[in-house]
Amino acid sequence: MNTTDEMFMHMALNEAEKGAYTTTPNPRVGCVMVRNNQVLSTGFHAQAGHAHAEVKAIENARSKKIALSGATAYVTLEPCSHHGRTGPCAEALIRCGVTRVVVAIKDPNPLVSGRGIALLESAGIEVTTGVLEERARWINRGFLSRMERGRPWVRLKVASSADGITALPSGVSQWITGPQARQDGHRLRAQACAVLSGIGTIKADNPRLNVRDIETTRQPIKVVVDSKLEISPAALLLQEGTTWIAHTQDLPPAWLDQHPNKANIHCVQVRADQADNGDGKTDLAKLLKHLADHCQVNELHLEAGFGLNGSFLQTGLVDEIVQYIAPRFLGSGAGLFRLPEQTELPDALDWSLHTIEHVGTDAKLVWIKQIRK
Amino acid sequence: MNTTDEMFMHMALNEAEKGAYTTTPNPRVGCVMVRNNQVLSTGFHAQAGHAHAEVKAIENARSKKIALSGATAYVTLEPCSHHGRTGPCAEALIRCGVTRVVVAIKDPNPLVSGRGIALLESAGIEVTTGVLEERARWINRGFLSRMERGRPWVRLKVASSADGITALPSGVSQWITGPQARQDGHRLRAQACAVLSGIGTIKADNPRLNVRDIETTRQPIKVVVDSKLEISPAALLLQEGTTWIAHTQDLPPAWLDQHPNKANIHCVQVRADQADNGDGKTDLAKLLKHLADHCQVNELHLEAGFGLNGSFLQTGLVDEIVQYIAPRFLGSGAGLFRLPEQTELPDALDWSLHTIEHVGTDAKLVWIKQIRK
Repeated sequence: MNTTDEMFMHMALNEAEKGAYTTTPNPRVGCVMVRNNQVLSTGFHAQAGHAHAEVKAIENARSKKIALSGATAYVTLEPCSHHGRTGPCAEALIRCGVTRVVVAIKDPNPLVSGRGIALLESAGIEVTTGVLEERARWINRGFLSRMERGRPWVRLKVASSADGITALPSGVSQWITGPQARQDGHRLRAQACAVLSGIGTIKADNPRLNVRDIETTRQPIKVVVDSKLEISPAALLLQEGTTWIAHTQDLPPAWLDQHPNKANIHCVQVRADQADNGDGKTDLAKLLKHLADHCQVNELHLEAGFGLNGSFLQTGLVDEIVQYIAPRFLGSGAGLFRLPEQTELPDALDWSLHTIEHVGTDAKLVWIKQIRK
Repeated sequence: MNTTDEMFMHMALNEAEKGAYTTTPNPRVGCVMVRNNQVLSTGFHAQAGHAHAEVKAIENARSKKIALSGATAYVTLEPCSHHGRTGPCAEALIRCGVTRVVVAIKDPNPLVSGRGIALLESAGIEVTTGVLEERARWINRGFLSRMERGRPWVRLKVASSADGITALPSGVSQWITGPQARQDGHRLRAQACAVLSGIGTIKADNPRLNVRDIETTRQPIKVVVDSKLEISPAALLLQEGTTWIAHTQDLPPAWLDQHPNKANIHCVQVRADQADNGDGKTDLAKLLKHLADHCQVNELHLEAGFGLNGSFLQTGLVDEIVQYIAPRFLGSGAGLFRLPEQTELPDALDWSLHTIEHVGTDAKLVWIKQIRK
């Protein structure tokens, strides 16, 4: 590993980020071909079913009539070794004549991890791994979470005043933060595979839970935690797109038939089994596993109220909190999270500050869960 | 004004900042002497009674046997024209042979503003003003507030969890934020002329209200808002340094005699006069005026509880809020400020985000009052 490798890997990761809104359920991958410190071509994976990043970079070089023999390929994720829709990328790299491959992270799937690298090495190609691993993991934190933990990366988004108020005592919350922060929130929704909220928010605000404030070619699926199946068939979010309803009560026969858009509405029962000492309440971990296994959800965007946000936080299922803080002091109203009363301040911190920035007139703080070692 | 002027003025302002902890009640002033884009000498004002920045820079050049003829002097505040303890700086600049003087801000005292510049110009020296005025005003926001508004610049410091909790329901608040944030808070105390708190905080925590976590050559005076003169003679903060007690009730005869350190304890009655339609309660504006007029307080560091912080905020007397936010979510407890319940969210914002940064494991947000134009 050296500074030059890091520089070109940053370029490859910038390529990978171009797929941030579209690759789901696939990972975001970028590739940069370099010879004598000159970039020959670049590529990124845009969408499932389209070419992988390595193939795009090879095609890109070919279209410019540039030979890749003796080049180094910078790839943000270990090249695949399987015959998928576009053929194994490791073989394509061997064929195009590169003599060195630099990889940020290995394939997280334990069944194939290391195979792409072994293929390259068996063809005499020098392979370096682990370059800018941390940034590469961050870009694919959703995909890696699903592969490594069998559940989505959960990002909770919340907007408050500088004194931690999310709504006035009257219920008014539109708008505490400014238009740029709200647009930034829609950018996060657009990067997610699914947007989740609770029945309380649906009843109070009747939100559409879709991406509106920015242009997008894809809408995330919607997920509603609605234990007692209280959602109105007239709820705006049910009228378009795909929605999953997570309930604990048994589904009455023909319940879905009342919905005009019923082909796109799905139900999943996620009750903490009493047989397993559960309390019959909503099992959020079970819901996450369902979303990973059945809906291939990498990044879950959680935008709920005081109660459900607090429940997710308490169960330890939140990985990242994006907090927009407005330049206002409101004094009283709803807080961020319903949590059990604490009596002590532990020295150990559950969270760490990942980034802080200005977004319009507001501050944006990103907190990530501390990994206990 | 040009980029070169700005570059050297930044250097002069960096010099000025060296006096941040010590110049009170004087302003922070820096000076840089430049000829042919080369810095010849620098100087800053360190302490009242010591040489002004211009004189320091001139002495500094002399000690290095560098002539200043034909040089440009960059000064962060208009050179004085009065015969103070060190003689008028404008005359010293004329004598040393500089041919151009660049000034960031004019003297804020309307009685002398412009006189130093006029003296220089009458001696044939070219004078440019207004270079990096905004940064220069920020560095001397306390001094300028006292000169221009007759009251100190009020900086409120508060530490909370990420969900806006300053103490657990049990009262526990030590320590929500980390050691670096607490040290940064002491750095702010050390830059202030006075540290203010309320009797509630004194009773609950018995704080010393002094500067401890960093080295300092000067302790700010202490101010306690204690309407009913409830403070115990044993209160730690009364045992050393100078303290002002702001009360509304009449001072009982010989009340001060109970204090061992009574020579350094002063009382000021700040009652909102009923004759003037006041309610007999604490008149915070009157207190600020007293601190400016009688104690020459430029920067007031406010570190109080929920109630007094809220009162200061409501009266519009807070200019800057420094908020340390810890990576914790506490759910319930005391909030930042007691404020009247609001029913609407106005579009107009009272505050703007000045800076955000990491301090240790915490975030530091600085909010400043919006100036309505």
